[in-house]
Amino acid sequence: MEIISGFSKLSKIDKIKWLASHFQGQEQEILQEFQGFEHTNPQIQRHFDEFSENTLTNYYLPFGLAPNVILNGKTYAVPMVIEESSVVAAASQSAKFWSERGGFHAKMIDTQKIGQVHFLWEGDFNKLYAIFDEIKDVLLNATAEVTKNMITRGGGILDIELLNMTHVEANYYQLKATFNTCDSMGANFINTCLEIFARTLQQWIGENDLFVGKEKDVTIVMSILSNYTPNCLVRAWVECPIADLGNFDGGIDAELFAKKFKMAITIAKNDPHRATTHNKGIFNGVDAVVLATGNDFRAVEACGHTYAARTGHYQSLTDVSIDNGIFKFWIDLPIALGTVGGLTSLHPLAKRSLQILGNPSAEELMMIAVTTGLAQNFGALRSLITTGIQKGHMKMHLLNILNHFQANAQEKETAIEYFKNNVVSFSAVSAMLEGLRDTKLVK
Amino acid sequence: MEIISGFSKLSKIDKIKWLASHFQGQEQEILQEFQGFEHTNPQIQRHFDEFSENTLTNYYLPFGLAPNVILNGKTYAVPMVIEESSVVAAASQSAKFWSERGGFHAKMIDTQKIGQVHFLWEGDFNKLYAIFDEIKDVLLNATAEVTKNMITRGGGILDIELLNMTHVEANYYQLKATFNTCDSMGANFINTCLEIFARTLQQWIGENDLFVGKEKDVTIVMSILSNYTPNCLVRAWVECPIADLGNFDGGIDAELFAKKFKMAITIAKNDPHRATTHNKGIFNGVDAVVLATGNDFRAVEACGHTYAARTGHYQSLTDVSIDNGIFKFWIDLPIALGTVGGLTSLHPLAKRSLQILGNPSAEELMMIAVTTGLAQNFGALRSLITTGIQKGHMKMHLLNILNHFQANAQEKETAIEYFKNNVVSFSAVSAMLEGLRDTKLVK
Repeated sequence: MEIISGFSKLSKIDKIKWLASHFQGQEQEILQEFQGFEHTNPQIQRHFDEFSENTLTNYYLPFGLAPNVILNGKTYAVPMVIEESSVVAAASQSAKFWSERGGFHAKMIDTQKIGQVHFLWEGDFNKLYAIFDEIKDVLLNATAEVTKNMITRGGGILDIELLNMTHVEANYYQLKATFNTCDSMGANFINTCLEIFARTLQQWIGENDLFVGKEKDVTIVMSILSNYTPNCLVRAWVECPIADLGNFDGGIDAELFAKKFKMAITIAKNDPHRATTHNKGIFNGVDAVVLATGNDFRAVEACGHTYAARTGHYQSLTDVSIDNGIFKFWIDLPIALGTVGGLTSLHPLAKRSLQILGNPSAEELMMIAVTTGLAQNFGALRSLITTGIQKGHMKMHLLNILNHFQANAQEKETAIEYFKNNVVSFSAVSAMLEGLRDTKLVK
Repeated sequence: MEIISGFSKLSKIDKIKWLASHFQGQEQEILQEFQGFEHTNPQIQRHFDEFSENTLTNYYLPFGLAPNVILNGKTYAVPMVIEESSVVAAASQSAKFWSERGGFHAKMIDTQKIGQVHFLWEGDFNKLYAIFDEIKDVLLNATAEVTKNMITRGGGILDIELLNMTHVEANYYQLKATFNTCDSMGANFINTCLEIFARTLQQWIGENDLFVGKEKDVTIVMSILSNYTPNCLVRAWVECPIADLGNFDGGIDAELFAKKFKMAITIAKNDPHRATTHNKGIFNGVDAVVLATGNDFRAVEACGHTYAARTGHYQSLTDVSIDNGIFKFWIDLPIALGTVGGLTSLHPLAKRSLQILGNPSAEELMMIAVTTGLAQNFGALRSLITTGIQKGHMKMHLLNILNHFQANAQEKETAIEYFKNNVVSFSAVSAMLEGLRDTKLVK
């Protein structure tokens, strides 16, 4: 490739042509491939093109459904967007399992979001602190126009604190504000408020006679929401008498299952190498719902993993207890999702996902997403401590391997039958297909 | 919704019909919508259906391109898949900026991956430890068939350790193995090896005369790779004399820019609330490349965030130094990506992405992904410490808001012109369009 100026200003087709020109002889193929992934309705396609910049086409991820998720007594079919095999299957199996044992339960612990204005100021902190109630009123007034609608909907700015951060760096202070953003994720709302806080603070101090000389100068470092929202927290759980867990593959009874399950959680609470993968599995479920509903999975991941490290020791997000014969398995996960704003209504399938979920409030959606993560984790641990992960996973992955070898419908059928009683691996599938194809040639 | 049995066994069309039957009067609309998102080539569509389970259609994400990424002297156009506005624009701008200042640099620090067999055993650890060299040979022999191909490609099992974990729980031990998986991400390879280790260990101890009574029983808790790979690490960096940074928006010269930049990093190293969002921005870039190349972003997120918490204090993944007038900005990020296996060759656009990147090795791809994260972080910090994030972001988001109000082409043009000099917000766009439409009615 070479350096190109003004790429963003090219039309979409010219962008594709520029790219394709680097692959001689394949220009038409590339053009056709990208067009093949476009939506046939140009108006819908335009929306996708405008979500982001320099867009060339659409990237497909499978849109699936996990039915039978009973949460707080209501039955959901949960839309999941994920490219990894066996995730939707595991969520569905866990959902079915718990639907026969009282279903999932969840509640919001709190819904506070956070934003920060980081600033440098050379002056006496006590002087600023003493007058901060007055400053707070000024800041709230300055944002009145912006917060009006949010307040009508029951949200707005909850509080603004002034923090002395000079233990980190000389002259460094912070406005730390908390927000309720109702059914929106709230990033734009919070950032807009913060930038107004910053400008207003700068101006107010500059114009106030209380302050003289250097004290009049406030240097704003940056104003930005925090994706770490430990007080926007969902708790989800399942519970049943141990005996009701039933029997599992590999000759494992309910007692042994509960014991191994507890040991698996103990390991994930103590060994960061295991905790990472344990939590990764939780996010397989959470992110699939986040994606399907047009929310931002990077924000959800960053928040959840920071929370997993909150004690100074990165650990499992789920926990289990076995008391008086009752098996209880739960998760506490901070998460900030929206059901209005962002792409939630612009992406036709995000909108459809919300409809499938019964047009939930943001709180309800957060509970559904976290529950799906808990279901996913139960499914992963269940496989791990009974038959091992590979048996189920490779069965699910079998079709991908068969597609890799361009197996036809008949070969697939034979292979699926054959691998019901044989271990799936890349080389085993290869060998099996070779055998199949050789036999045919002989005939 | 109601509980349904055998959902996974229904045909795709019957799955959709079952779902649609819950939305009376909209059955046809839902059916047509889902079909509208299908690929017109049924063979390609079948692959997508088989990636995952219970698939109903494809979920679209914009597939974009960030050109002008110079890395280790080579110019790339980087495919990015992301739904969030302004990410691709920011990566492209940072790439262009650094292309004029020596480009990006990156290197692999190491490529080790990790897997663990967690087991319970009631016996004398020293007895097991003393004989572990022999056990190791047995385990390596047992996996010889599985590792053959990987060894030919230059990888395989690097080592197996026996860890005493009884400080966590009585009788708990671990086989901790390290792997080189060459150009594959290696999850299936590692998990398959681990499950063979587990079975072999169990059998070998059971049959060995050295062990008697309870010592003969090994309980395997679970065998699974770790997504935390601190020794599969990329370092990426940019550097230039401070003076060469030039001038920035908001009347900020190179000196002040460097100073504010350093302060922004200091904050992200000390305040977890800021670190979460700081790192979230890095993953905006990394994940977009991970998705575009058919890799697993949950694994990448979990690994990176655990690494961010490795000191016991969750902090920024990037760092900056200003020494002798040189501005140097870098990231250390553990990451495990593949360029063969998984979906890399099965997803047509993942395959195409790899071609666009020049069919890189896994190591080269990891360097590209991490570099894109560094570029993204530079772009975010640049906005934050100069004009603020909302100005650029809301400009990029403007088209989404206009689409929300179903603005036509002419209205869009007028709005884009108008908002060149006005602050974009949801209500401002709404008001502007209302004005526009009222005027028309009067005419």
